[in-house]
Amino acid sequence: MQPEQALKAITPKATDFSQWYVDVVRKAELMDYAPVKGFMVIRPYGYRIWELIQAELDARFRASGHENAYFPLLIPQSLLEREAAHVQGFSPEVAWVTRGGSEELAEPLAVRPTSETIIGAMYARWVQSYRDLPLLINQWANVVRWEKATRPFLRTTEFLWQEGHTVHRTAEEAQAEARRMLDIYRETAESLLAVPVVAGVKSAGERFAGAVDTYTIEALMSDGRALQAGTSHFLGQNFSRAFDIRFLDEDGQEKFGWTTSWGTSTRLIGALIMVHGDDRGLRLPPRVAPVQVVVVPIAAGPRGPEVLEAARALTRELEAVARVRLDDRPEYTPGYKYNDWEMRGVPLRVEIGPRDVDAGTVVLARRDVGTKETVPRAGVREAVAARLEAVQQELLEQARRFRDSHTYPITREADMEAYGFRGFFAGDWCGEEACAQAVKERHGITIRCLPFGEEPQGSGCIVCGRPARARAWWARAY
Amino acid sequence: MQPEQALKAITPKATDFSQWYVDVVRKAELMDYAPVKGFMVIRPYGYRIWELIQAELDARFRASGHENAYFPLLIPQSLLEREAAHVQGFSPEVAWVTRGGSEELAEPLAVRPTSETIIGAMYARWVQSYRDLPLLINQWANVVRWEKATRPFLRTTEFLWQEGHTVHRTAEEAQAEARRMLDIYRETAESLLAVPVVAGVKSAGERFAGAVDTYTIEALMSDGRALQAGTSHFLGQNFSRAFDIRFLDEDGQEKFGWTTSWGTSTRLIGALIMVHGDDRGLRLPPRVAPVQVVVVPIAAGPRGPEVLEAARALTRELEAVARVRLDDRPEYTPGYKYNDWEMRGVPLRVEIGPRDVDAGTVVLARRDVGTKETVPRAGVREAVAARLEAVQQELLEQARRFRDSHTYPITREADMEAYGFRGFFAGDWCGEEACAQAVKERHGITIRCLPFGEEPQGSGCIVCGRPARARAWWARAY
Repeated sequence: MQPEQALKAITPKATDFSQWYVDVVRKAELMDYAPVKGFMVIRPYGYRIWELIQAELDARFRASGHENAYFPLLIPQSLLEREAAHVQGFSPEVAWVTRGGSEELAEPLAVRPTSETIIGAMYARWVQSYRDLPLLINQWANVVRWEKATRPFLRTTEFLWQEGHTVHRTAEEAQAEARRMLDIYRETAESLLAVPVVAGVKSAGERFAGAVDTYTIEALMSDGRALQAGTSHFLGQNFSRAFDIRFLDEDGQEKFGWTTSWGTSTRLIGALIMVHGDDRGLRLPPRVAPVQVVVVPIAAGPRGPEVLEAARALTRELEAVARVRLDDRPEYTPGYKYNDWEMRGVPLRVEIGPRDVDAGTVVLARRDVGTKETVPRAGVREAVAARLEAVQQELLEQARRFRDSHTYPITREADMEAYGFRGFFAGDWCGEEACAQAVKERHGITIRCLPFGEEPQGSGCIVCGRPARARAWWARAY
Repeated sequence: MQPEQALKAITPKATDFSQWYVDVVRKAELMDYAPVKGFMVIRPYGYRIWELIQAELDARFRASGHENAYFPLLIPQSLLEREAAHVQGFSPEVAWVTRGGSEELAEPLAVRPTSETIIGAMYARWVQSYRDLPLLINQWANVVRWEKATRPFLRTTEFLWQEGHTVHRTAEEAQAEARRMLDIYRETAESLLAVPVVAGVKSAGERFAGAVDTYTIEALMSDGRALQAGTSHFLGQNFSRAFDIRFLDEDGQEKFGWTTSWGTSTRLIGALIMVHGDDRGLRLPPRVAPVQVVVVPIAAGPRGPEVLEAARALTRELEAVARVRLDDRPEYTPGYKYNDWEMRGVPLRVEIGPRDVDAGTVVLARRDVGTKETVPRAGVREAVAARLEAVQQELLEQARRFRDSHTYPITREADMEAYGFRGFFAGDWCGEEACAQAVKERHGITIRCLPFGEEPQGSGCIVCGRPARARAWWARAY
């Protein structure tokens, strides 16, 4: 395929955002559709992004005292039904195993949609004394939720995630844990993915099934819709009572534990694409880019071998400071390669041709802002490291500016229309689910969260006008 | 629990090896039984061992040019049935999803028992030209096989593994890949797990369903039974024809690709336990030990705080050279702690008491050989690093000596009896499945492999006496 064709094949964002998204994820070879409806394959380029996200989260979980473990994929129906609110929330989405080998099973087994129940059953055995607490475990796993409408990375029948499950001695400790893990999600979204988020608590209608409080981070995509990027739940004693997680406290009393759970998933890759991508394709923040630097030799003509040798030496040198790849494919022109790697979102391109070899220079091209500059070959390592850091910061700044300029303080629901119902709407809320439900039905807009530290501004509920109990951020969401 | 009780609770190996194994995996908290029969939970201590195995294998896969990806858990029945020998081998073991949400599925979906079929379907799309080859992908995943008799880590209904799947231009390249990956398994078993293995090819009756050749590494457990610890398959064109994986070669001809697959699993943890464990519990090789060094302060009495402070400083210093843990639990005696960490297989214990503080020494106790020595506090980092290396080598040597002294060259099947049918029996084989089958029926002994480079010794087939075509290693296996 020629470069112009490749570019033409990506639908412009402004024309059809959904089609742009699908074009980008497929052409950049992040994923492909599987033979079963609703399932996808995560291809190596996409999976590498997930591994980089995993490495960062895993290090942070470990540093905060958590250990990894692995629990069974299949959950007996009776166990799934033990916590009433939980089963009501999840049962419409469950895939059931009913046959094993040649036999019908006496009890159907759920393919885990989430693991509070099976983990709760195990924790009831492991927790005996206050000395066993806190119990801090995380699991990296696949889960299945039978979804009607799916979209690559954002909503698929199977997805990869991590789920943390903890037990604590007191409600305060469990609340602190739930908040601490949300902080880790927020920091990771911002520092690794360059995706700014707003953190807060969910309204009752948007809570996780079985939770007392659900905390969330919400990001704004470049089409003005919100994406829930990670949630952390304070589960109170709902699951410890349902699963009998009790411990003998220091005071000699037997008590129920206080539990939390928290998770984030391959959905983060969707956020990355929709926050940073443009009409040329992906734009990846360096810290999460599988290839941070691509070296493209301009090696046609008689001096080709010499240039290629210089490009190889350059690549070897840059390996000390970055994830670098040399594109020495002889069958493509430099122009084709530029477009190809831009489409794949590689943050920095290094070009080297005969004139650079003579002058002792190389050309650095930034994917984020499209600038090119000539730098001395001698200082190239430092220049590359500095530019990568600059790209990381610039992408976060661009996203922050977009988010801030698309966050609208409003006093009445009708104010949303002027902005085409796109963006975050910050408005007072009376606290009644009826008002939230009415906005959802009228405009498909939901309360994304009640941001921490924000107070009602005094204009009254944007829906009913009555005195407000909270400040809420509302948006259409993925 | 008091130390003596803890020790008594492990059944001696000589009394009942199976019960010893179960006692060790549960008491060392490597695993626990799940609420569904045949499933297990991998607890943090066991999962950390798996992570260390993963890290080593993953680095070796990457260094040899492989990338990770992720394919769907559920496989349509029609896809699973596309390769005839494959479906025949696996269908008795498949768990089926027949319901999703509230609807019965039109076509049942298999929970993957292995992924050749779904990956083959995707490769047919991705492979077009010889330039797309070789295609070298690995997946870390869970799989489900409906087993009747299960045993922790060795055979469970669900297990964790990696499965590599590659496509090549020629049969020779694919064969070389299959052998290269087996080498990686062999090297990892020996250098990381200190488990010596014999590498060879499977006889036709023991091949992977759908393979042309199956290569294997086989280890000898300390009860004299063999364990298959990793397999690598040359699949010829069986799967590329079934799934239509074709490419346009440089000569302009359209050809079917040549494929391989290779896998190893959490079963390796079972090998580790059964090769190195003793009546006191686990003995972990340092390279795969979650805790390599435990520091135990002898801190009772008036000088307790001072000793504890010295133990803390020592721990911090040792963190630079090892995965170290300080056991400062006030509720247990040093003696209890010694037994507890020995049971968990920690390779090296460092004891520090008031006399050590005064003398500027510490005591090092090795788990592998049970020796204790006093070393100067000043050189403790170097001493610890050297002892860990010594433990790693000693465990490999012990396992090698055991394996070699339990490998019996024989000329007749009847010779096996003198050894209680335990150990590896190296004997000539005529190559007829009927002879292999007869030995299996009579003694539960199978051909584990035809080791690379071994030739018939001239005594004739150990079963029928006819001229031999191969040298085979036979054993009872897990």
